[in-house]
Amino acid sequence: MKVVALSGGVGGARLVEGLSRALDGDLTVVVNTGDDCVHWGLAIAPDLDTVMYTLAGLGDDARGWGLGGDTFSALAAMRALGEASWFSLGDRDLATHLTRTAALARGEPLDALTARLCRALGVRARVLPMSNEPAPTLVDTVAHGLLPFQEWLVLHRAPEVRRIVLPDGPRALPAALDALEAADVVVIGPSNPYVSVEPITRLPGVRDALSRRIVVALSPIVGGAAVKGPLAEMIPALSGAPPSAQAVLERYGGLLSGFVVERGDEVRGAPSLATDTIMRTRDDRLRLAREVLEFARGLA
Amino acid sequence: MKVVALSGGVGGARLVEGLSRALDGDLTVVVNTGDDCVHWGLAIAPDLDTVMYTLAGLGDDARGWGLGGDTFSALAAMRALGEASWFSLGDRDLATHLTRTAALARGEPLDALTARLCRALGVRARVLPMSNEPAPTLVDTVAHGLLPFQEWLVLHRAPEVRRIVLPDGPRALPAALDALEAADVVVIGPSNPYVSVEPITRLPGVRDALSRRIVVALSPIVGGAAVKGPLAEMIPALSGAPPSAQAVLERYGGLLSGFVVERGDEVRGAPSLATDTIMRTRDDRLRLAREVLEFARGLA
Repeated sequence: MKVVALSGGVGGARLVEGLSRALDGDLTVVVNTGDDCVHWGLAIAPDLDTVMYTLAGLGDDARGWGLGGDTFSALAAMRALGEASWFSLGDRDLATHLTRTAALARGEPLDALTARLCRALGVRARVLPMSNEPAPTLVDTVAHGLLPFQEWLVLHRAPEVRRIVLPDGPRALPAALDALEAADVVVIGPSNPYVSVEPITRLPGVRDALSRRIVVALSPIVGGAAVKGPLAEMIPALSGAPPSAQAVLERYGGLLSGFVVERGDEVRGAPSLATDTIMRTRDDRLRLAREVLEFARGLA
Repeated sequence: MKVVALSGGVGGARLVEGLSRALDGDLTVVVNTGDDCVHWGLAIAPDLDTVMYTLAGLGDDARGWGLGGDTFSALAAMRALGEASWFSLGDRDLATHLTRTAALARGEPLDALTARLCRALGVRARVLPMSNEPAPTLVDTVAHGLLPFQEWLVLHRAPEVRRIVLPDGPRALPAALDALEAADVVVIGPSNPYVSVEPITRLPGVRDALSRRIVVALSPIVGGAAVKGPLAEMIPALSGAPPSAQAVLERYGGLLSGFVVERGDEVRGAPSLATDTIMRTRDDRLRLAREVLEFARGLA
């Protein structure tokens, strides 16, 4: 069974890691790059790095970003020099950003560089950026107007959102479109639909490719709360509805063949699987991944 | 007494630190930037950093470069990613290079950026790069042909030199020329004349300004050996003479009003001061700086 996963950061990365083990590495992951940014002059790709580090078993499980056991000496020194210190980059993590920045500067495409980093870190799954072109997600806020994604999320701590502004220009990575066209099943991780999944699905050709596939998503909302991040506040602000798995399903608007929700969260309008969706341990990831794949098989 | 010092790395930086204390911070230092390089995409200025860190009391005294007590986690991670690891950049040290790289990229001149870094680190002396323009020193070697300076020194460990190639284009920093014109005394640190001092003195206008000043240099050769670095091998290769304080004095070719040498090293052709020139402790630096200034006063 050919499986492609779409992923944002933490939750998506954890599911992807489970999927990769369930499929013995035979998995393609298309990762959101809408929250990529340039910080300290470095090209940062937070979701790509979280997926890559999580797949390599090197991620920091507690924080959900960066490398486990990393140190922050450069950050402390930047603060002492009066430079911006609101975005935490670890010392070992810096190697990834330095490598990416130098590679892009000399013209290496983001997907080739990502493949090279994954090889060096021992990642077996195929990790693709959604695009080789910059595709910055902007967040229009009540208090500060239009903000680049990381400034909204990290610097300003996710203030109230008026709308999400996704760019029109960028093209999907051709290899990502090819993988979607060839997929038996597409799994959308328990990621934020507005800022992690839609930056991928609205790229030209992606929604069309998905419409011909079995697509299963996981709900990032459990019992009316977001497992992580600001989604629970975004749903009422952007849709007028209270935060719920149902609201997420409706946001996907007919894209899904099936929806996986937490036990007790009921949804109408699509075949659903209710199970334990919170991934606390590595065993949880594998068990959930297997259930999701089994559910998808049943939908085919 | 207005004092300007010309400096390369380690030895020059130590004398400069003594001079700064002897003059209560009232010192201008013009620093070689001929060995600046771009590594990992970062703008590195080894001599500027060594002077700055040494003046701030933050340098690593044993190594002579970098920050004392720094860690090397990013370097280890770069090595794991298969990136170049022959040039050791510490984690806290990286903050300086990241700040410099971002500043230059947005058009801040090197001297303004250097002043800003010095302020942040509490450096009282005025530290000027010799030029705001790239002025790369190349080393023509018997074994590898023409090499950028750091590749010659660090990557290839200073193989035999055929000649030093200094660029023709770069202009001296106007503020450095002004400081030299206004100086009562110019002190040239115990730096390598070929690759630390001449990159400064051959910039248009510098030698002319020096010809009207009291100029005192310290010998980097003690008892026929270099205190640090590859100078003892360079002198025979480039001049045909054995390494000696006399050979250094002759290399300066009439530029000097006086020459400070180690006790026991005799020189002919300029007024000289023989004293203890090896700076092992911070007290040594201050004592030597005071002796050099006293000697220069006597030459006026």
